[in-house]
Amino acid sequence: MNGDWDLTPDASRKQRIGFDETIFCAGKTTDQINRLLRLAREANESLLLTRLDSGKFSELSGELGKCLDYDEVSQTAILGDVTVRKDKLRVAIVSGGSSDVRVARETARTLFYYGVDVREIYDVGVAGLWRLLEHIEELRDMSIVITVAGMEGTLPGVVAGLVPGLVIAVPVATGYGVAVNGGTALNSALASCSPGLVVVNIDNGYGAGCAALRMLNVMRRSRE
Amino acid sequence: MNGDWDLTPDASRKQRIGFDETIFCAGKTTDQINRLLRLAREANESLLLTRLDSGKFSELSGELGKCLDYDEVSQTAILGDVTVRKDKLRVAIVSGGSSDVRVARETARTLFYYGVDVREIYDVGVAGLWRLLEHIEELRDMSIVITVAGMEGTLPGVVAGLVPGLVIAVPVATGYGVAVNGGTALNSALASCSPGLVVVNIDNGYGAGCAALRMLNVMRRSRE
Amino acid sequence: MNGDWDLTPDASRKQRIGFDETIFCAGKTTDQINRLLRLAREANESLLLTRLDSGKFSELSGELGKCLDYDEVSQTAILGDVTVRKDKLRVAIVSGGSSDVRVARETARTLFYYGVDVREIYDVGVAGLWRLLEHIEELRDMSIVITVAGMEGTLPGVVAGLVPGLVIAVPVATGYGVAVNGGTALNSALASCSPGLVVVNIDNGYGAGCAALRMLNVMRRSRE
Amino acid sequence: MNGDWDLTPDASRKQRIGFDETIFCAGKTTDQINRLLRLAREANESLLLTRLDSGKFSELSGELGKCLDYDEVSQTAILGDVTVRKDKLRVAIVSGGSSDVRVARETARTLFYYGVDVREIYDVGVAGLWRLLEHIEELRDMSIVITVAGMEGTLPGVVAGLVPGLVIAVPVATGYGVAVNGGTALNSALASCSPGLVVVNIDNGYGAGCAALRMLNVMRRSRE
Amino acid sequence: MNGDWDLTPDASRKQRIGFDETIFCAGKTTDQINRLLRLAREANESLLLTRLDSGKFSELSGELGKCLDYDEVSQTAILGDVTVRKDKLRVAIVSGGSSDVRVARETARTLFYYGVDVREIYDVGVAGLWRLLEHIEELRDMSIVITVAGMEGTLPGVVAGLVPGLVIAVPVATGYGVAVNGGTALNSALASCSPGLVVVNIDNGYGAGCAALRMLNVMRRSRE
Amino acid sequence: MNGDWDLTPDASRKQRIGFDETIFCAGKTTDQINRLLRLAREANESLLLTRLDSGKFSELSGELGKCLDYDEVSQTAILGDVTVRKDKLRVAIVSGGSSDVRVARETARTLFYYGVDVREIYDVGVAGLWRLLEHIEELRDMSIVITVAGMEGTLPGVVAGLVPGLVIAVPVATGYGVAVNGGTALNSALASCSPGLVVVNIDNGYGAGCAALRMLNVMRRSRE
Amino acid sequence: MNGDWDLTPDASRKQRIGFDETIFCAGKTTDQINRLLRLAREANESLLLTRLDSGKFSELSGELGKCLDYDEVSQTAILGDVTVRKDKLRVAIVSGGSSDVRVARETARTLFYYGVDVREIYDVGVAGLWRLLEHIEELRDMSIVITVAGMEGTLPGVVAGLVPGLVIAVPVATGYGVAVNGGTALNSALASCSPGLVVVNIDNGYGAGCAALRMLNVMRRSRE
Amino acid sequence: MNGDWDLTPDASRKQRIGFDETIFCAGKTTDQINRLLRLAREANESLLLTRLDSGKFSELSGELGKCLDYDEVSQTAILGDVTVRKDKLRVAIVSGGSSDVRVARETARTLFYYGVDVREIYDVGVAGLWRLLEHIEELRDMSIVITVAGMEGTLPGVVAGLVPGLVIAVPVATGYGVAVNGGTALNSALASCSPGLVVVNIDNGYGAGCAALRMLNVMRRSRE
Repeated sequence: MNGDWDLTPDASRKQRIGFDETIFCAGKTTDQINRLLRLAREANESLLLTRLDSGKFSELSGELGKCLDYDEVSQTAILGDVTVRKDKLRVAIVSGGSSDVRVARETARTLFYYGVDVREIYDVGVAGLWRLLEHIEELRDMSIVITVAGMEGTLPGVVAGLVPGLVIAVPVATGYGVAVNGGTALNSALASCSPGLVVVNIDNGYGAGCAALRMLNVMRRSRE
Repeated sequence: MNGDWDLTPDASRKQRIGFDETIFCAGKTTDQINRLLRLAREANESLLLTRLDSGKFSELSGELGKCLDYDEVSQTAILGDVTVRKDKLRVAIVSGGSSDVRVARETARTLFYYGVDVREIYDVGVAGLWRLLEHIEELRDMSIVITVAGMEGTLPGVVAGLVPGLVIAVPVATGYGVAVNGGTALNSALASCSPGLVVVNIDNGYGAGCAALRMLNVMRRSRE
Repeated sequence: MNGDWDLTPDASRKQRIGFDETIFCAGKTTDQINRLLRLAREANESLLLTRLDSGKFSELSGELGKCLDYDEVSQTAILGDVTVRKDKLRVAIVSGGSSDVRVARETARTLFYYGVDVREIYDVGVAGLWRLLEHIEELRDMSIVITVAGMEGTLPGVVAGLVPGLVIAVPVATGYGVAVNGGTALNSALASCSPGLVVVNIDNGYGAGCAALRMLNVMRRSRE
Repeated sequence: MNGDWDLTPDASRKQRIGFDETIFCAGKTTDQINRLLRLAREANESLLLTRLDSGKFSELSGELGKCLDYDEVSQTAILGDVTVRKDKLRVAIVSGGSSDVRVARETARTLFYYGVDVREIYDVGVAGLWRLLEHIEELRDMSIVITVAGMEGTLPGVVAGLVPGLVIAVPVATGYGVAVNGGTALNSALASCSPGLVVVNIDNGYGAGCAALRMLNVMRRSRE
Repeated sequence: MNGDWDLTPDASRKQRIGFDETIFCAGKTTDQINRLLRLAREANESLLLTRLDSGKFSELSGELGKCLDYDEVSQTAILGDVTVRKDKLRVAIVSGGSSDVRVARETARTLFYYGVDVREIYDVGVAGLWRLLEHIEELRDMSIVITVAGMEGTLPGVVAGLVPGLVIAVPVATGYGVAVNGGTALNSALASCSPGLVVVNIDNGYGAGCAALRMLNVMRRSRE
Repeated sequence: MNGDWDLTPDASRKQRIGFDETIFCAGKTTDQINRLLRLAREANESLLLTRLDSGKFSELSGELGKCLDYDEVSQTAILGDVTVRKDKLRVAIVSGGSSDVRVARETARTLFYYGVDVREIYDVGVAGLWRLLEHIEELRDMSIVITVAGMEGTLPGVVAGLVPGLVIAVPVATGYGVAVNGGTALNSALASCSPGLVVVNIDNGYGAGCAALRMLNVMRRSRE
Repeated sequence: MNGDWDLTPDASRKQRIGFDETIFCAGKTTDQINRLLRLAREANESLLLTRLDSGKFSELSGELGKCLDYDEVSQTAILGDVTVRKDKLRVAIVSGGSSDVRVARETARTLFYYGVDVREIYDVGVAGLWRLLEHIEELRDMSIVITVAGMEGTLPGVVAGLVPGLVIAVPVATGYGVAVNGGTALNSALASCSPGLVVVNIDNGYGAGCAALRMLNVMRRSRE
Repeated sequence: MNGDWDLTPDASRKQRIGFDETIFCAGKTTDQINRLLRLAREANESLLLTRLDSGKFSELSGELGKCLDYDEVSQTAILGDVTVRKDKLRVAIVSGGSSDVRVARETARTLFYYGVDVREIYDVGVAGLWRLLEHIEELRDMSIVITVAGMEGTLPGVVAGLVPGLVIAVPVATGYGVAVNGGTALNSALASCSPGLVVVNIDNGYGAGCAALRMLNVMRRSRE
């Protein structure tokens, strides 16, 4: 008993919840990724790939690899063209330190793939509070603010106490000692006294992007 | 060295983030609550009180207690009149079992206080999946679906895989063994494969309501 | 004081509990595995080896390696011939995502080694619920359904609420953040509201197969 | 906004998975339990209630309370008549110490409610191994052995190494220090070297009973 | 074998480390506390008692109880007269919410007992950041700032990023869900990006006071 | 199905491992304890009872209660006469603070029951190190030193670095914050750099006594 | 500011507690180990080295390496001659599976270094209980039995229920899922119902050997 | 969407809290570090770099690397000249074992960078208590004592019980089993009975240095 098994792509996802199935590459072989890319290209469909490290990216079939818009920092790749629309509804991504950028960019790239214009404000952690306060007026005009922070994760609570939009916290697995693996950043965000702050899993930049998309899709539909 | 200290109410909260400071009663004495109620009545302001158990409610000053709309299940009280507006943007609250209702109602009352019309669908846990599936068409039309579930917390992931709106999970501290204190329900929601699901702290029905309000406020402003 | 020590194989295991001692290769040297294979071949006995990674497999003695039916995905090897019997009692293995297949196949190979015919249904996680629901009628006819799922581990509870057979959950150590190491998938399965769901250790595909065998053996004996 | 909400009983459960919805009383008010009992009596249906402590039992409506067969140790009550059938397939419940009996009896009562004849062997923990060994021959003839043990939870692994039937471990929240809340007993059972041992949540005597019922139902159907 | 045992007071503590042995009442009987009070009064020594709840206080010998300066909020009592000295070195205590006051006052009373003048600024949590920022200039002049905060514990990191003095964080066991028992507030403080923040055990208001005393004692000695 | 079940006393324990089965009262009803006492008295056997709180003790049958030597601090009772033998092999019990005495006395009473002469040295915690150092010469002559300490559990490592006898650490569930439930004291003892320190479960004063007895029994036999 | 620092060897350890300082190599550089070996050789002292992996061993100075009796399995090395004495007091080491041998041999080598004759009985885990029972009579004659077991750690509790000598449990970091890192084996041993079982840290084979030495030293002294 | 983002250095840190922004290199690329070094050199500013492992150091631009005073043990580098001032206020660093030196030196180098004269006393762990006691008189004269210890972390509590200065504990991630990752050393320090001990995150040698600097800065200002 040896052999292969078939994947069961979730073909109706876009129709059900408003976005395509994304390829999470961390648990997949190069062959599987090649196969999925080929299928998408034959069907003339665009595709977002996440957690595609540069080693695995360089192993992809040369022809397929060339079609991809690859971003090493966020370990994401995009197949197909993207058109970014300016929108009344605006999204900002705010990060604490330079180690959080890899996750912040996963969010940025996810929103970019769906044509959402994003404002990125990085390296404004609370240890030097003035850096954040300089941007507060701009952030108060945003529909959605996504905070990306590791270590003790103070940023989301401070932001959510200052801006009226939806604030989504992405805890990041940076730090050492009690901060290792992102658990402290996660719990800080969940326990925040600032009302109405919502949270996604540690390092889940993609998930935060999708949550923003759900809200943007609802708002677009509601204006139709 | 004995004596009293002053509270520092967050007077500008409504202006900053769109809603009033709510009185979280769990850590307060009856005297403190009476004082805050009196101040609000003198200023002719409305007020939402959460985690006000029936014992503490009955100890409040009789005159003040009579002004309150008290709901025992959710342990919330409302001072002042409420006008519910019908809106194009709709919110549903979905709960798993009968033990989750106390938290689901905290969310419902929070939204009611801010005049939001809410659809409540309770006791439709995944162990009898047909109960949820019967409501899916209705849920697919909602702008926001708030799931409230304890034990293993399967509900939010299943809902988020079926509806396009923003899905907010409130884990609940029900259950025993590994489910005790809500940690399993919390982690299940955070780790869900359904993209774009967001999460608040265990038992934080109030926080889920506030997150929905943030989104509704943004959407209302964007249509002005 | 240097030197070797003797292993004490559990020779009466088959007679006591109905199946042979399996070689768990993760903690063993190539020499130890070679020795055990040689003993089995001399005694003309069949043997199942688990957690035999491809590196260690390629280091085995060439002659012995050739006698093995090796499956890279599940990291299992089988010495000796296998005859699969069709049976009134049927077993299905259902997995959530493509990362769960390595564990699902460990179960499949364990049952295959004991001649049990298995139905494998992979990549039908709850994020796209329709994929599972398409198979429900087939699953309702099974005597045993083994679910294999990581991340938030929603699959076993949904399945156990829909089918009457024995449902055995194998949590899988896939995922990141709060899902890392499989603890969330494990606790979700243990805390499930669906009555009568049973659980084995994280990644213990072999153990789930053995549990199914215990039940099949009892049922076969009861019909003699 | 005050008022009541409706429960959504899982009416098709018996037809789907072979047993009725049981009333888990821990999270319910006396009024809710009275209402459910009345409905069952009007429909002439039998009913199993679990986690009904003696205080809550004595508060039930006198008329309804009298119809119940109540067992204080297991905190279970049964409405309706029960007929126990002798069966070729036999089930044993084995417990470690006297503190485990409350959980062991929850399993026994669950199986009794469904007419299953059960052999109860209590207080045979591994600290005095001879007590268990005296019963091994009898246990080797059982189709299913359910072990119920707290503290370090050695019992299930020892039993599963000695008998061929399906062995289901119920960890119990007894003990102090590192054993508090049953986590050590749970992990011991999950990590056992004895192959094919399956586990349910801590204190989930009811769940172990349901798992046994799933297997018995399959076996009965397979002989029809 | 029954009978009593003797306590071994740490008589040389003041001489070794600069302050007396304090009576931690949580683990002591009323008799033991009475005995210790009597000894101190006979020796004409002053005494600080912590964790003396009002129930236990009212059970103390009437004569002894009358000699005590008891503060119910902080559950502390002081035997003997206290003289507060104005000092160039100043200490502030800053707390997040009203539930943190019981711990903040334990610190305040400890410092009061040793004659230290303290500035108390309560209820200035980060959810309404302006409340804290209004006090920053004052806090920047302090030698020591002690922050007392539960929930997500954002306060110490924000303060330590804004003031040059020694900042000591006291995490508090307030909150629910992931914040329960103070673990999140503790880890937030330990993982803070603001350099040079130090931390004491959860609820250890007394310990923070003693740390401040160590620093004050050193500074006083250094000016002699 | 209601009724009683039989206990299975471990009658051969004394012969197997050198001491009687002790009655752990925490999980037993007054009736069960009465029954066991009566059996022991009829058989003219002595008996040790642990975790017998004063409430339960006062509920025991008056006649039986009067036969017991009860010690409230350690919550132990002894039925039968005890003869303490002076021995060349000496045992000391050393405790950190006054809250540890209840556990230290459980050890002392266990050894007393078996006729072992014990030296008790209490309240000599490491915060005032001189208290311990005063006793070091005496402790260096002991065959066994049992340390009983909660909070951070520094005592066993310091003692084991200073004395040549067997050192047994009993962690105690005293303290608050990170020390709550005794986990820190337990881990400190296990991780100690002092070689040859052994540890029992949190609060297991009885177990430490039994370990000492095992060693004393071996030593006595070896001299016969 | 660069440069070296001096180590402070614990020169009086042998005189204080009866054995030399051992070199724990895991945290040391090859240079440090070479230096310590050279010092010992010049002083004509013997030395035990633990956690010396084969890579680091091969990097030691050739001349020094040749003087060592190195054992790869246990990662221990001995400098100097060893004379094993037969003794009335006997020690056995019992291990569960083949992965536990590396730790069991660390204990064996530690005792060998101090001239203690040891009986090693390996691979007799509880999954095949007969293997252990075959050795029980022999084990009942031992003064000390050291059990070495990972996974669920059933072995120590079963042994301690059957033999009268001192039983020391060494939990081992083998296993996967909930058993990973040895925590389950540790907690099982600590929570065991078998009275008088003592425990050392996970993988601390050296510590168990030292504990046995403390007891043997006491016994030898007591016979002088 | 690809490209670069700007860092936002905390330029006013020195003025706000008294010391510069340090470069934590663990999360940065060689390019980022080169850029920051170049900026500092152009501005003629000094710079402290931490967590710069030797691999990354050797990859720095040759010209820049040569300007650095690099210390491999502590993985720190210093750009610019340092002048150490003798001061009435003295700081000591005390470490337990040789594995703690890497962290102790991070503290020492941080203080050296700010011109603070430091006394380093290493390898004086509590297992051989005399080593510490030999230094106590010297330590009693210090203004600040920083203890650096892994494993069970006994050192800070013993020191804080013996000296009057401020004692800062740095737990270290050394050890195995329950000590792994430094959690036991951290909790031991937090739970210590010695009053006024303060703690920083595991391995945070830099943070302990900064805390000392805060105190020294206050003391220097207070004498101006």
